[in-house]
Amino acid sequence: MAKVVTNAPRSEAALCAALGELGVATVHEAQGRRGLLAPRIRPIQDGARIGGNAVTCEVAPGDNWMIHVAMEQARPGDILVVTPTSPCDDGYFGDLLASSAKARGVLGLVIDAGVRDVRDLRDMGFPVWAKGVFAQGTVKETLADVQVPVVCAEALIHPGDVIVADDDGVCVVRREEAENVLEKARAREAMEAGKRQFYENGQLSLDINNMRERLAEKGLVHE
Amino acid sequence: MAKVVTNAPRSEAALCAALGELGVATVHEAQGRRGLLAPRIRPIQDGARIGGNAVTCEVAPGDNWMIHVAMEQARPGDILVVTPTSPCDDGYFGDLLASSAKARGVLGLVIDAGVRDVRDLRDMGFPVWAKGVFAQGTVKETLADVQVPVVCAEALIHPGDVIVADDDGVCVVRREEAENVLEKARAREAMEAGKRQFYENGQLSLDINNMRERLAEKGLVHE
Amino acid sequence: MAKVVTNAPRSEAALCAALGELGVATVHEAQGRRGLLAPRIRPIQDGARIGGNAVTCEVAPGDNWMIHVAMEQARPGDILVVTPTSPCDDGYFGDLLASSAKARGVLGLVIDAGVRDVRDLRDMGFPVWAKGVFAQGTVKETLADVQVPVVCAEALIHPGDVIVADDDGVCVVRREEAENVLEKARAREAMEAGKRQFYENGQLSLDINNMRERLAEKGLVHE
Amino acid sequence: MAKVVTNAPRSEAALCAALGELGVATVHEAQGRRGLLAPRIRPIQDGARIGGNAVTCEVAPGDNWMIHVAMEQARPGDILVVTPTSPCDDGYFGDLLASSAKARGVLGLVIDAGVRDVRDLRDMGFPVWAKGVFAQGTVKETLADVQVPVVCAEALIHPGDVIVADDDGVCVVRREEAENVLEKARAREAMEAGKRQFYENGQLSLDINNMRERLAEKGLVHE
Amino acid sequence: MAKVVTNAPRSEAALCAALGELGVATVHEAQGRRGLLAPRIRPIQDGARIGGNAVTCEVAPGDNWMIHVAMEQARPGDILVVTPTSPCDDGYFGDLLASSAKARGVLGLVIDAGVRDVRDLRDMGFPVWAKGVFAQGTVKETLADVQVPVVCAEALIHPGDVIVADDDGVCVVRREEAENVLEKARAREAMEAGKRQFYENGQLSLDINNMRERLAEKGLVHE
Amino acid sequence: MAKVVTNAPRSEAALCAALGELGVATVHEAQGRRGLLAPRIRPIQDGARIGGNAVTCEVAPGDNWMIHVAMEQARPGDILVVTPTSPCDDGYFGDLLASSAKARGVLGLVIDAGVRDVRDLRDMGFPVWAKGVFAQGTVKETLADVQVPVVCAEALIHPGDVIVADDDGVCVVRREEAENVLEKARAREAMEAGKRQFYENGQLSLDINNMRERLAEKGLVHE
Repeated sequence: MAKVVTNAPRSEAALCAALGELGVATVHEAQGRRGLLAPRIRPIQDGARIGGNAVTCEVAPGDNWMIHVAMEQARPGDILVVTPTSPCDDGYFGDLLASSAKARGVLGLVIDAGVRDVRDLRDMGFPVWAKGVFAQGTVKETLADVQVPVVCAEALIHPGDVIVADDDGVCVVRREEAENVLEKARAREAMEAGKRQFYENGQLSLDINNMRERLAEKGLVHE
Repeated sequence: MAKVVTNAPRSEAALCAALGELGVATVHEAQGRRGLLAPRIRPIQDGARIGGNAVTCEVAPGDNWMIHVAMEQARPGDILVVTPTSPCDDGYFGDLLASSAKARGVLGLVIDAGVRDVRDLRDMGFPVWAKGVFAQGTVKETLADVQVPVVCAEALIHPGDVIVADDDGVCVVRREEAENVLEKARAREAMEAGKRQFYENGQLSLDINNMRERLAEKGLVHE
Repeated sequence: MAKVVTNAPRSEAALCAALGELGVATVHEAQGRRGLLAPRIRPIQDGARIGGNAVTCEVAPGDNWMIHVAMEQARPGDILVVTPTSPCDDGYFGDLLASSAKARGVLGLVIDAGVRDVRDLRDMGFPVWAKGVFAQGTVKETLADVQVPVVCAEALIHPGDVIVADDDGVCVVRREEAENVLEKARAREAMEAGKRQFYENGQLSLDINNMRERLAEKGLVHE
Repeated sequence: MAKVVTNAPRSEAALCAALGELGVATVHEAQGRRGLLAPRIRPIQDGARIGGNAVTCEVAPGDNWMIHVAMEQARPGDILVVTPTSPCDDGYFGDLLASSAKARGVLGLVIDAGVRDVRDLRDMGFPVWAKGVFAQGTVKETLADVQVPVVCAEALIHPGDVIVADDDGVCVVRREEAENVLEKARAREAMEAGKRQFYENGQLSLDINNMRERLAEKGLVHE
Repeated sequence: MAKVVTNAPRSEAALCAALGELGVATVHEAQGRRGLLAPRIRPIQDGARIGGNAVTCEVAPGDNWMIHVAMEQARPGDILVVTPTSPCDDGYFGDLLASSAKARGVLGLVIDAGVRDVRDLRDMGFPVWAKGVFAQGTVKETLADVQVPVVCAEALIHPGDVIVADDDGVCVVRREEAENVLEKARAREAMEAGKRQFYENGQLSLDINNMRERLAEKGLVHE
Repeated sequence: MAKVVTNAPRSEAALCAALGELGVATVHEAQGRRGLLAPRIRPIQDGARIGGNAVTCEVAPGDNWMIHVAMEQARPGDILVVTPTSPCDDGYFGDLLASSAKARGVLGLVIDAGVRDVRDLRDMGFPVWAKGVFAQGTVKETLADVQVPVVCAEALIHPGDVIVADDDGVCVVRREEAENVLEKARAREAMEAGKRQFYENGQLSLDINNMRERLAEKGLVHE
């Protein structure tokens, strides 16, 4: 009725780390403005910035059993991606599961539901991106799939896709495109660094990007 | 037309403090996953953790008059619990009321509405759990009841029930059950401490909790 | 089709600074409880408190082109006020635009939409009040008006009105009323300082404000 | 772990019917503006107006098992009141359960969650007030209590309380107060009938209710 | 403290009727996609379509007193526009006020808050556009302004502006622009009638509007 | 930069029709409770029930250009599935596009955004499932993909998947699984028909489904 796919593929560790370092906004732009999770997913801490392999996990509403099952599939450098089969705000994940995840080298959690024990999670330095905080506990009664493609917060995520998460939210990069996206993201960052200097000197983007002519063509008038 | 119940009962101070120390998630579990306020109630600060007696106060929408009346009923160790008679986001409570509450030994505020002067509230160290922050002021025109049973953020709260509040939200424990719940919560915490160590050593909850057999019975397959 | 009003009026710098110092809650009260932006507008940082001139900017949904145009109109002491012509959560503003704004002496941003690069924005000390955080990028295709009266987060704002923003949210003061409002806000602050002392000594607002008689007249009973 | 209270008390049938006939707005006013369920509870049909005894039923998120248990407790003239132990939008109730409920003389359903098969429910003439419509199915794994006091959509409801539901929403009347409330509701309706005639003749409430003097006292000015 | 502006200007009746007949979507387009109220404002009935003069009315949260005051200012052909000074879902308006409004020739109500007695309102044929339905009653304690410019559901509305409302929502047309907008709206409608025929014959907008070249220029590829 | 996949596969017409007839709740159950679109997607009419092939279309926020492009790909028996690349409530679709769609044999529209001209849409008998109604118009400036796999309202949809839509919402069935799901759905419907008769005779699901023993095992007590 439910299955766990073992030995799912992974993206290369160096690739994940590099994408994580570049951050969500840059990576998202570099892959053509795709792959963002819905804005309801927010970090519960400030300043964390990670990149890692998705380990995907479906859960029933109010039931966190499959997270326990998914933990066995997690390897160092992975990021747990948990999505309920119907919308739920319950607190699926707390300090015990975080202890286990950290011990196994998991880098963080992305969940389209609630978490709890958030003070402990922050103290442990285990970063979490969630839909909310709610202490409501869960049961362990219903099966669901682990390491299959899932839709999490409106984004399609496959096991082994690269998850990038920081203060701006969460972005997914397809495993097959990760190398290509990294290259584009680096180019973009270099280009932005150049522009930043112009701006800091007080120059206007209207001039740097030659926007004035196109604005006029479209009919913009200064009065 | 409206009433203030004076000399409402209180729970024992030591009981309140002990429950507060254990925290919302643990206490909520210990009493059978009941008593949580809705997740829209969030702390306006990080790291506060309190336990105290509920002083309940109904207010009309956009009207904070009865908080002034409730203040007279508050004693050291109490927590103000304020609920509007219809949904409202206005800023019912700010630094002046907080000064008064603090001077009277009140430990904090739980309110299913808005608050304001939040920078001052944080600076004063007066912890607040609220539905939101909104500077919109209120009038003083309409009566409502003080120290009667109320529904606040979807939880039933009686005067003298124990309020536990921390970064995870707010939980209420019935006065008559507080002692019993404390006992169970301590047992739970001890049990969790044991498990945490196993997890930190890298063991899986699947093994510690003997889940494998039941998962297989339900039909879980590893591919 | 679209216009930029140049040389829009400004409020006096000293007036703006003084109102900013008094803060949103006090200023809002002083002008008769008007002028608040909707509570969905929240600071992305803690502790910022500013007062400045509104530079208003309309933008199409998912299109930040006009912010680039508005930047040219901004002068030291201004605050950018951006409102989409239909509701949008996209990240219209990030670290590059913030670099430009800062270089031009802009004090901060108020936007009824999303922003991104929030870690950078916080690190730069460029304060932002927004509807949310979302890394979703925007295009540059559609014109809209700059420096015209706008409705932003349900408040009417004219170019040159005074924007006051702090941890409680954002309030607008009409340019013609700013001097008068400042006077009233100062009076209010003085009055509150007096009351605060009474409260800190444990006195009740019921007594300080002579509420008991009016409460009894309305029918309040103590049991 | 969970219990069903059998032989819970009932309010008198004639009382329920009379309150149902008067409707939610009138009954709510007659009992001092208390007892309304939150406005998220809306009818899935137009024009239904019922009054009956509450049969209360808690359910786990995503799990409708206890509705099946509650059905056995239902008698002719009852109204099912279902509330999840944590927020859930799933479709707990469809045409099969409605067939069963109708056969047992149940008058309708109030549920702080989702329902499905709504075309069938409307065709059957089985009225429902719900938080939403969602086809997401539920499991049958977790116990919860039946015929105990519950908080449903922010209102406290005891078994045997009178539920009044119409196009305006849902209101609960405490069993002990039902007779008294009915009397007041009838008086209110008579009073309103009188006023309605004045209004239909074009007279103003300002005059009928003698509001002009009090408005002037408060400072209202006509310019 | 509060004022009623008497003898506010009106737009011409024929103009209002003509704009009402054209409907919200067409009028909104004709005036450059401005003037829509936020999408939370929805009709409580199907098929109503009106155009009339705005009579504006501010109300305190949970307090409908000023609607009674505004009623005196209403004339045949007017539409009541009610906006709370802070967000509120209460039921400000029911069948009694509707009887009064109807008797005075008022065409309908637009309110950024709740209404009640909706079955009666529908039966009376008095159309309403509201934020929601909620039976929660209101008090009569607090003054606010009548017939002043207001922001209602994020749109700026002056007394005497033309309100157009139908199943799509509500749009406001500035009194000074109404004649001009009517002309443009009629032109637009004629243009749309022409296109509709092409479409009904199975022709594509890609061809009718010559979009193919511009799509190719932007880089659209068919695979 | 953007592409249109022509000659995307289709599911068989008879299969689509049969699944449409069975309805969302039954089909969703038959495929293991998967494939539902989020509950924010609601019909704008009552009683419509369709099954057809998905033609998928991405659109930029506030920009409906690609719907015009997608129309060319639509064939009789198709259903348009439109999803914005970031959340948007604008009215992307009105009576003109509906005329075109109807002329081309399109059965209906599913859109995770707003629509307008809803009275006309209902009068034309062109069924729509949408996130909301909003008259806000859109521009035609930005490209996006047509007939590629999309995530619409949190569900993954491929071109040629079967869309089933009725008063309960919308469900997608993968093209490769459609035949198998149809078989299971028919079996389910037959089983439900049998149960319905038992219920109509007043029998309890507790007995028909042999739930009593399992309830007792889990610890349910009747008091």
